[in-house]
This record gives sequence, structure tokens and C-alpha cells, in this order.
Amino acid sequence: MDGEAFSRRAAEMADFINRYLRDIKEYRVTPAVTPGYLHRLLPSEAPRRPESWESIMSDVEDTILPGMTHWQHPGFHAYFPAGNSYASILADMLSDGLGCIGFSWAASPAMTELETLMVDWLGRMMGLPKEMLPYTEGGNGGGVIQGSASECTLVCMLAARAKALNELKEIYPDEEDCVLLSKLVAYFSEEAHSSVEKAANIAFVKRRKLPTDAHYSCRGETLRKAVETDVEKGLVPFFVCATIGTTGVCACDDVEGLGRVCSERNLWLHVDGAYSGNALICPEFRYLLRGFQYVKSFNFNPNKWMMVNFDCSVMWVRDKHALTNALTVNPIYLQHDNEAHSIDYRNWTIPLSRRFRSLKLWFVIRMYGVEGLQQYIRSHVAMAKRFEALVRRDARFEILGDVVFGLVCFRLKGPNNLTESLLRRINQSGKAHMVPASLRGTFVIRFAVCHPDPTEEHVQQTWGVITSNAECVLFEREVVVEKLRRLFSKYKENRSRRPIRILGELKKNCIEPLGPHPKTCRR
Amino acid sequence: MDGEAFSRRAAEMADFINRYLRDIKEYRVTPAVTPGYLHRLLPSEAPRRPESWESIMSDVEDTILPGMTHWQHPGFHAYFPAGNSYASILADMLSDGLGCIGFSWAASPAMTELETLMVDWLGRMMGLPKEMLPYTEGGNGGGVIQGSASECTLVCMLAARAKALNELKEIYPDEEDCVLLSKLVAYFSEEAHSSVEKAANIAFVKRRKLPTDAHYSCRGETLRKAVETDVEKGLVPFFVCATIGTTGVCACDDVEGLGRVCSERNLWLHVDGAYSGNALICPEFRYLLRGFQYVKSFNFNPNKWMMVNFDCSVMWVRDKHALTNALTVNPIYLQHDNEAHSIDYRNWTIPLSRRFRSLKLWFVIRMYGVEGLQQYIRSHVAMAKRFEALVRRDARFEILGDVVFGLVCFRLKGPNNLTESLLRRINQSGKAHMVPASLRGTFVIRFAVCHPDPTEEHVQQTWGVITSNAECVLFEREVVVEKLRRLFSKYKENRSRRPIRILGELKKNCIEPLGPHPKTCRR
Repeated sequence: MDGEAFSRRAAEMADFINRYLRDIKEYRVTPAVTPGYLHRLLPSEAPRRPESWESIMSDVEDTILPGMTHWQHPGFHAYFPAGNSYASILADMLSDGLGCIGFSWAASPAMTELETLMVDWLGRMMGLPKEMLPYTEGGNGGGVIQGSASECTLVCMLAARAKALNELKEIYPDEEDCVLLSKLVAYFSEEAHSSVEKAANIAFVKRRKLPTDAHYSCRGETLRKAVETDVEKGLVPFFVCATIGTTGVCACDDVEGLGRVCSERNLWLHVDGAYSGNALICPEFRYLLRGFQYVKSFNFNPNKWMMVNFDCSVMWVRDKHALTNALTVNPIYLQHDNEAHSIDYRNWTIPLSRRFRSLKLWFVIRMYGVEGLQQYIRSHVAMAKRFEALVRRDARFEILGDVVFGLVCFRLKGPNNLTESLLRRINQSGKAHMVPASLRGTFVIRFAVCHPDPTEEHVQQTWGVITSNAECVLFEREVVVEKLRRLFSKYKENRSRRPIRILGELKKNCIEPLGPHPKTCRR
Repeated sequence: MDGEAFSRRAAEMADFINRYLRDIKEYRVTPAVTPGYLHRLLPSEAPRRPESWESIMSDVEDTILPGMTHWQHPGFHAYFPAGNSYASILADMLSDGLGCIGFSWAASPAMTELETLMVDWLGRMMGLPKEMLPYTEGGNGGGVIQGSASECTLVCMLAARAKALNELKEIYPDEEDCVLLSKLVAYFSEEAHSSVEKAANIAFVKRRKLPTDAHYSCRGETLRKAVETDVEKGLVPFFVCATIGTTGVCACDDVEGLGRVCSERNLWLHVDGAYSGNALICPEFRYLLRGFQYVKSFNFNPNKWMMVNFDCSVMWVRDKHALTNALTVNPIYLQHDNEAHSIDYRNWTIPLSRRFRSLKLWFVIRMYGVEGLQQYIRSHVAMAKRFEALVRRDARFEILGDVVFGLVCFRLKGPNNLTESLLRRINQSGKAHMVPASLRGTFVIRFAVCHPDPTEEHVQQTWGVITSNAECVLFEREVVVEKLRRLFSKYKENRSRRPIRILGELKKNCIEPLGPHPKTCRR
């Protein structure tokens, strides 16, 4: 393919993407395929000789698209949004075209410097403490783009681990490092993202999952008690991960209360704002920054809720040296003359190499302006409020947690299995897709506003899918309950032992009304 | 920006990339900027209102391009190549356009399944042991695309750590985990990539850097001795990272010899073939697979040497359960009905979310065919041989290590500082860019073939830059040496104590001939 063909194919690819996004509502939101479907469709060996562009694109159409879960579909309300915009796609294309790898300042100064500027811009847009921003005069703060929130939490935990171990080493200089490691304890709420637990596994530290209050928020006093108990046992608390917008229910931990304990006890406080952190660009959400004077590191994902394509998770630290101390390895082939006066982002991350990810932030922020991005956030919050109103009007349903951002957690009143059946039915319909959460054992369905341009019509349509399926679930339950009641009366007359079992079933009120899934509905 | 504008801008962006790649030789390969240059050029706050496409692209032209180190420049011979091709750019564009995140099978079945198929294709193209391939009937093997080789090494070390600790736990069930951790030792050669040491830091395990032989290759006997010494001390060897194509000099460790020791001692053998592993697609390099029957995990980077854009590092494991055991955390919002029969790649990696990276492998392999990719690898090796011949013809230079792939390590005969001066001069010229390596204290310049379509003319041009700068370095040295000699004679006549210092200088034969860098040459 020469340059001319490339230009032609790029325009065609853009047309393909346009058509896909335009016609996306014609697809099932989740595909009707079973594991292994693609292996059955495609050759099991790579071709020896080149194949035509047309054959590849027709395979995309015929074999890939029918096997996608369509995250940009108006009926997609699962997980959190996958950020997307034309501006971001074009910036990524430029990053690929330039074909540079920016692990150190010297490896491509513009890559490093635009990244620093973008994390500074974003920090100002969000009102973060000045000391965390890279361009604050005389500060030790700084920021970096990581691939994912998982990596942000992990590197911050590693930085905190290194700092805590150094401090312990001063007190116990002759103790084996692993013995000191065995004393460290990390804290996070039971609603924290699974990646925090994964980070603790990798960092090989003890951890406590703290209970939350009625709003699923982790409070300072809860942390204080846990820390005191551990200190009494001779352990060394070192790290807390608070969340702004938990994955399950979008709850916000009490950063201020947690922060006070962290400050008193010399714990590293990291705040994970992967999704909800984006809302900080709107002044009406700035109250979430309460307690940020105690925060040592913070991350959020523009690739979730700022129209930037994955991957792009932005992270700040109050003390960049604490981070780089934990991650620096400096072989000669990576050294350069300007090390003392520049940033080498490879010492801020686990991967060495990195793409030119700041380009997509730059393009998106400039193409929309801060006001355009605020409008986008507000449109999602408005649609969540709209959905909340629909749910609250229907007495069969209830909402758990507060609706603050773009997520609503709802359920059918009654036992969990009703809502479980409802969710299974919704997902089998192919018209909407949602995933569950378990809030202290209560099963809820998460309705996340995900479409880049969500409308009342989308919300109404999804609500239609939910209510029509709820009717089936409730009707089937009535049928089953009625049948059980009849059986119960009959057996009671005959004094058989079986009614006890039936009574149990009735009490549980939770028969699986659907039976095994019909094969045609399997995803 | 609407869909129509997007198509137009995509074509323009393709034209921009074409022009950039066509005119790239007009740029200095490394830019003439100093740290902080971009902050001085761009606004320090994000715009409130949207800005025009034209203003963004003109800033790219005026502020970004002049600050790039141009990895696709014909004079770029630093590090290793950054893979690039039109096919890969277009596939990435499609990935962005689809805007899906594939952390589990259910999150987008096509993403997971194309990835599995691509690692199977690649494994067959490279002749890897069948037991490591995902589609081998009844096998436990599997593969995954990671973001970088650093992550591959880390997750394999974590898998080995979990396995070793489980085994120790069976023998010492009451011992504290951290005490068991303190026994573990990882082994890798002094030439292994810095990311292996970083992984050991993160995994918090002891490590031994093993010496290498005359070919910079780490031998089985060296490992055996180190392991025996550690076992005698009561330590528990658990992991070895061998390298095919070290970063410094592209040496290959003795996988077979290391493997035998690993097999006898129950150590996890990981092979890092980040760059040179790509050559396995050519039958003439298959000898590198000797000893792979002992290999537990292997990775290589198509984003280095297979025309695939960063990021794309492919990794295989012989026992996928050993990997997922170490990395799985399974919250309800990520669970799905097909878990038992499908792959959830989030349990194979550190990040949760992932891009549709297999698309670029699929596009590139099909657009070039296996034969086209082999031809590409061979063209790089041929150019390295060509460069080697030029160096060998010039008696002022010498080559260290074997020239097997696309890398040549050369130096001026004599003390290190001559070659150091030469490299500084070459990089200051802006006409070629190389980085050094230190091979047991001997300073060499690494000449890596990096251009996607390298020609004899490129090689000749770079050789011209090298030799003309070498002449200056050698001439300046002669001048300095002559001056010193004269001073020495003069002082000797006067019986001053100063000639001793001058004599020392002469003996070292290593004056810095350039003095402090002139400001205009600073990068």
C-alpha cells in the first residue's frame, strides 16, 4: 500500500466508521454468538501471500461486527462509557502516523512535554491542589498519562510501599526487607474497584476491606478504628485508596475524613476517580475536592467520560520523587544529557514504551473547549436523572444509592432472584445491555448512561425494554407462586411431607421462572 | 465535527502523515530544543470555547514536529525500530472507531476471539511448541497481547511467584507468606533488559544478575552454579528470564542450557524475545527455538519488528492457569454466563481494560502475508550486514558481539572516551541518532536498522556521518595529545611536579576534545 492508497483507504475507513455508528442501533447490543464462534469462521493459519484490502474489510463486516458487544449502541448501559469522538480518533491516527515511542524526554521531547502540559491543563480545569500540578513553581508535583486506572492504583501503591519501607528501614536497619513488608497494611472500602485488590496482590501487602455507610461511602471513623486495631497488633498501616464514584453504585468515599486519619497516621492517600473524577471539570461537582489537601495521588480516566478513546488514565502525585524512587531503573541505553532538567515518564509507569497519548487529550479539549466538555458531562447526568424519575414513578421498582453522576442502580422490589431474572431477560433481548452489582448482598442492575450523545428517546426505549421484561418476570412469578400454593393445599390435605419443601419455596418467593436458557438466546 | 467532516479530516490526516513520512529526511533526526520548549510555546490554560481544526493542525506543524525525535527518519538508528505500516494505522483507526473495551469475553466476544486466533497464528508462524498455543486440543497453553514487554516479564514473574509460594506453602503451611517470599530468587543475565529488574523490584524478590560469556550470552552452567550457591544458603530459586536478542548487543542466551537447569530445579523459564523474537518467522532463525521444550513463557513485540504500531507485545504461557491464578480478582460486575468456556483476558494482564489490538496484527499479517513479513525481517538483517562490512573495512573501528539480527555494536579502537565523543558528535549533528551500550564496561555505539524500508543509501549516509565525525574526534585527540607531549617535555626540563599530572593525562589518552557543548548544539 502506497501513500496514495493509504489516503484513499483512510477516507473509506472513516466512511465505514460513520456507517457503523449510524446503523449501530440495527445490531443486537450484545451478539448472539457462543464461545469459539470466530475460530470456526476464520482460517486457522496465517496466509503465506498478501491478501486484498477488500477481503479483509468484508471479513470485518461478516465475522467481526456480528461478534461485537457494541459499546456505542444507544442500548448499551453496561460498565461505564467507553469514551469516543472523531477528534480523538484523528489524534490517535496522528500518533500512529508519527510512529514515535516516548519513554524518555530525549526519545521524543514533544511527546513528553505535551503530556506534561495536558496533565497541567486538566489539573487546572478540575481545580486540583496547585501542589499536584507539574508547572507549579517550586513544587514537587506532577502528572502522567497511564494506560489504565489499574496501573495508576498499582504504581501509587508501589510508591507508598517503597516510602513506608524506607521509613521502617531507618528504625529497623538490620531487619530483612520481607519481614518489614509483612507489617504493611493497605485499606480500601468493600466498594473499591477490583483493581485495588489486584494491586495489593501484586504489591504483596496485607489489606483490609472497610465497610461503608448507608450511602455506600467509606468514612474516616471506620478507617481510624481499623488502623488502631492493626497498630495494636504491631502492623504498619501505609496506604489508603478512596474512591470518587465506585464502580458498583458510584458512591463517593469521605475523602476529608479519611484524609485526616491519613495525615495523623502518615498514610499515603490515593483517590481513584476513574469515572466520576471527570465531573470535576464542572464547578457544581467541585465539592468532591473537599479533603484533597490530604491526597497524595489522584487518577481519573478521560477514556471513560471525556470523549477520549481508550487508553488514557491521567494521574497526579504530590511528590513525584516518591513515585520515581519506586520505579526507576536506569540502564545506559536509556540515559541522556538532559535527564536532570526533564521528565522521563518511563520512571512513572510499569511499561517502558508509550504512545503519544497526550495528542488525543489536546485535540479533544481544543475541539470541544472546556465548556463543550462540561456540557457533555451534564447531558449524561441529566439522562441519569431522567431515568431515575422513570424508576421512581413505578412502585414495582426501587433505587439503591444516590444518583449523582451518570449511573442509576435499580431493582425490582422483593427477593434478588426477581432482579436476576429481569437482568437475564433484558440482556437476552439484545435490545439493551446492563451489568449487575451486589450492594451488601442486594442484587441491583446498573443503568449507566454511555452513549456519546444520549437522548431522552434512548432512555425511554431502554425503560420500555426493562418494564416489558419486568412484566414477564412478575407474571411468571405469580403463576409459579399460585401453582405452589395450590400444590401446598393439596399436599396439606394428604398430610404428605412434601408441603414443607413447597412452603420453603413459597417463603423464599424466589423460583427461577425462566428455567434453562433456550439455546437461541445464548450469548 | 459530524461524520462527513470526519471523513474529510481523516483523508487530510492521511495526507499529512504521507507528507510527514515523505519529507521526514528534511528534519534533524533529533530536535534542537531544550527542556520546557513546548510550555513556552503553548497556552498554559485549556481553551473555554472550541477551537478550529486548522489552528490545531497548524500547531502540530509549528510546535510538535520541531520537538520530535523522528523514529521513522532514515538516520534514526537508536534503541530498536518502532514498528509502523499503513495497514496497522488503518486497523488502529478501526479499533478506535468501534470504540469497544474487551476486558472479558462478554465485553466483546470478537475482540477476545480474534486475539486468541492471532496469537495462535503467530505461534504457528514462529514454530513455537504446540503446547503453548491456544488452539492445541487438550492443552493448557495460551497467549495474550500485552501493552509492552515490561508487562509480559512482570506478569510471568508474578505467575512464577504465586506458583512457587503455593508449593512452599504446602511444605511450610504455618509460615508467614512474606517469610516465604524472602526465600525466592530470580535469575537473569547482566545483559537482560532493565524491565526484568523493574519486575523483580515490583514482585519484591531477590535477584541475581548472571555474568555472560564471550558472546554476551548467559550459559546454563553459570545459572547452575548460582542456583546451587543459593540453595546452600537456604534460598529458593524460582524464576529465570533468558533473552533472545539483548537490548545492548542482541546476544542470545543459551536457552537450552538454562532450560535444563530450570527443568531439574523446577524453575519457571521465561524467554524475552522482544526484538529478535520476531525473526522466528523466518525458518533460518528457527534454531533459536532450541531448548524451548523447557520454556514456560515467551514474549516478543510485533510493535518492534513486524510493522505493527505500538502497543503490541505478544506472550504465550505453557500453563494459562498458573498465570490467571496469580492475577484473577472476580467482582460481580465483571462476571458473565460464559466464563467457564471462554477466555477473560483481564485475568492475564495488569490493566483491566484493553483496546482491540489484535485488529492491527490481523490487518498487517494479511496485507503482507507471512512471506512479506519474512522479506521485511531479512531486509533489516541484510542492511545490518552491509553496515558491519563497512565498519570491518575501516581499521580505526571495531565491532563487539555478533551481528545476527538488525543491530551492530561498534566503537573506535582505543579508550571509551573516543567513542563517547564520537557518539555525542553524531547526535549533535542532527543527521543520525544512535544510543550507546556498555558491554562489561566497554562503551559501544548501537547501530540499529530502524527504517521501515531501509536502503543501502541510508546505511551509506549514516556511515558517512560516523566517519566524518570520527575524523574530527581523532584529529582533535591528536592535537590534544601533541600539546600534552610538548607541555610534558617543557615541564620535564624545568623539573616541575606538574608533568606527572600531564603524564597521567597522556596515559589515559582520554581528554574530552570537545569541551562543554556549544549552546546551539544542545538537544
